[in-house]
Amino acid sequence: MTTRSLFLLPGDGIGPEAMAEVRKIIAYMNETKGAGFVTEEGLVGGSAYDAHGAAISEADMDKAMNADAVLFGAVGGPKWDAVPYEVRPEAGLLRLRKDLKLFANLRPAICYPALANASSLKPELVEGLDILIVRELTGGVYFGEPKEIIDLGNGQKRGIDTQVYDTYEIERIASVAFELARTRNNRVCSMEKRNVMKSGVLWNQVVTETHKAKYQDVQLEHMLADAGGMQLVRQPKQFDVIVTDNLFGDMLSDVAAMLTGSLGMLPSASLGAPDAKTGKRKALYEPVHGSAPDIAGQGIANPIAMIASFAMCLRYSFNMVKEADDLEKAIANVLDQGIRTGDIMAEGCRKVGTAEMGDAILAEF
Amino acid sequence: MTTRSLFLLPGDGIGPEAMAEVRKIIAYMNETKGAGFVTEEGLVGGSAYDAHGAAISEADMDKAMNADAVLFGAVGGPKWDAVPYEVRPEAGLLRLRKDLKLFANLRPAICYPALANASSLKPELVEGLDILIVRELTGGVYFGEPKEIIDLGNGQKRGIDTQVYDTYEIERIASVAFELARTRNNRVCSMEKRNVMKSGVLWNQVVTETHKAKYQDVQLEHMLADAGGMQLVRQPKQFDVIVTDNLFGDMLSDVAAMLTGSLGMLPSASLGAPDAKTGKRKALYEPVHGSAPDIAGQGIANPIAMIASFAMCLRYSFNMVKEADDLEKAIANVLDQGIRTGDIMAEGCRKVGTAEMGDAILAEF
Ligand SMILES: CC(C)[C@H](C(=O)O)[C@@H](O)C(=O)O
Ligand SMILES: CC(C)[C@H](C(=O)O)[C@@H](O)C(=O)O
Repeated sequence: MTTRSLFLLPGDGIGPEAMAEVRKIIAYMNETKGAGFVTEEGLVGGSAYDAHGAAISEADMDKAMNADAVLFGAVGGPKWDAVPYEVRPEAGLLRLRKDLKLFANLRPAICYPALANASSLKPELVEGLDILIVRELTGGVYFGEPKEIIDLGNGQKRGIDTQVYDTYEIERIASVAFELARTRNNRVCSMEKRNVMKSGVLWNQVVTETHKAKYQDVQLEHMLADAGGMQLVRQPKQFDVIVTDNLFGDMLSDVAAMLTGSLGMLPSASLGAPDAKTGKRKALYEPVHGSAPDIAGQGIANPIAMIASFAMCLRYSFNMVKEADDLEKAIANVLDQGIRTGDIMAEGCRKVGTAEMGDAILAEF
Repeated sequence: MTTRSLFLLPGDGIGPEAMAEVRKIIAYMNETKGAGFVTEEGLVGGSAYDAHGAAISEADMDKAMNADAVLFGAVGGPKWDAVPYEVRPEAGLLRLRKDLKLFANLRPAICYPALANASSLKPELVEGLDILIVRELTGGVYFGEPKEIIDLGNGQKRGIDTQVYDTYEIERIASVAFELARTRNNRVCSMEKRNVMKSGVLWNQVVTETHKAKYQDVQLEHMLADAGGMQLVRQPKQFDVIVTDNLFGDMLSDVAAMLTGSLGMLPSASLGAPDAKTGKRKALYEPVHGSAPDIAGQGIANPIAMIASFAMCLRYSFNMVKEADDLEKAIANVLDQGIRTGDIMAEGCRKVGTAEMGDAILAEF
């Protein structure tokens, strides 16, 4: 029997509650479909800091390295606002991304039809919205050196971060975007600030060359990142795949997520390169939303983003395409039935808690 | 008689057409109110490049330096997409900002009541919206060194930009934000990515300290910039003054501008520090919109952002508060009368061109 190893990092805040619902689905798939998932669990973020004074322990890093896929909840909360920079909750997530070389972050921004009215945008602008943001995740200003605060004396300090991109980093993320566009509407929009940043100039050149060399069948457009932010708000449906760097991707994917009205529902996948021998790629799956400390522990958080992240895991790490489709369909059905957690509650719907939502999805699966 | 010197840089695309409408207002104020405006005109952007091979000439830089205020149209267009990086149209604007030390960029995002329906957001979310984004304009990744593309050999290049902020730069922009908040709703939200960037950590500290030292009467909140982008889309009215760095300010102010549905109407002011002796500050005023090359030269561009930028000039450079108020009121009245350029046309309104719009505003002034 195949075994499939999953390393679960529920993290902080609502992370553990959301992860519990994924556990149910995993157990169900093992029992009824012989899926052979083997799970281990670790600590990340504030909970790891509380336990071992680091945002993730070496032992858990090893487990993440060796698993077929990592499922990640969320990290952070006011409790850890004052911990040193090096061990802040986010450091655990950033280390996972970097050490597992998860350079490709896939963030679908889709609008569930049942939720078009929940968007702050006019419903006709978001109904049927289906964008995929492909964000570079291991480079740019997140990791470039120098990254430091220097004491200049005289009460003056200097904060420095460095945005760096090499040709190969841009080429590989652009290739991911073009490949994915071929499975969708065949259009890629690349966003940078080439009018201000040298890394943007290089980004633009390399994307253009990669397109010319291998993906001329895909339609390519370039947009300045600030104009891209505007266009996302103005007319989001004009986009199919957006490819952009780590920092712009952070901003733009959050804006896109919020547009859909489905923020609590959006998953993401962070993928490495396929291994030369096995073809396997390291991967981490996490909701786009954060740890929501204000509602943590109350059993009211929306587990859909976490469950949808597991659907991405089925698709990208295990090639279980049918199961992924079925799980996504189960989510849509439950929403169509008017079952809602508090964050997406609407008139005439039935309000449920985290566990009930998970159960409803499982029942439809 | 007082003389007030204005240096006009209409620039490219629709810049000159929009500037022509401001000229009418200047002439009117000179004739009927003895305003004593003395104007000179120069070239910037692509038009400067065509004339002298630079995005702005040294002679025009001198004039900008010596004027009481600079009125700037817009720069850029496909014609100059391939010119070298150092002389691209934007370089003229960036040099003006840097050499005139215009560190404080004020970008109001207001929603004209007559246009609430033009927003892609639901009208109730933007009606009455009045945010002021205070963007740092002479630092950060726009100007930090190294900023270069290095050839690494082997077909690999490396693009580098450097984000740098010193304590004094953060302190002075925070002070501007706090001072302006006192004239409004007394609330400031500071945005950075302290969870990822060291410059963000310093930004957060210095804003906090500046607040503690001098502005405890103002309400201060901190938000991560990505969450800030989300919140702008979700519930823009929660904000009063937003203070942020150069790059985040670029992105966030564009998103905010688009939200209002009034993009073609939004002005901005870029201000230097008051001179120690005279108290005067160097200043440049420009629309938030770009050069819109697709509609340039047709007499259909919306001149309101340029006229509203002149209103900011009256207020901030010449302390002509009543005149500024009157001009802003004239704009609102004309919109209330249903007079519209094509970009904001709506059912039941009367469509006019650039000159007619300018005349209508002048008639109300
Ligand atoms: C938690 C934080 C470090 C992270 C980021 O900035 O990448 C988050 O905002 C995200 O988008 O995944
Ligand atoms: C034209 C460009 C250099 C400029 C910027 O990036 O600052 C523009 O986008 C702006 O916001 O004023």
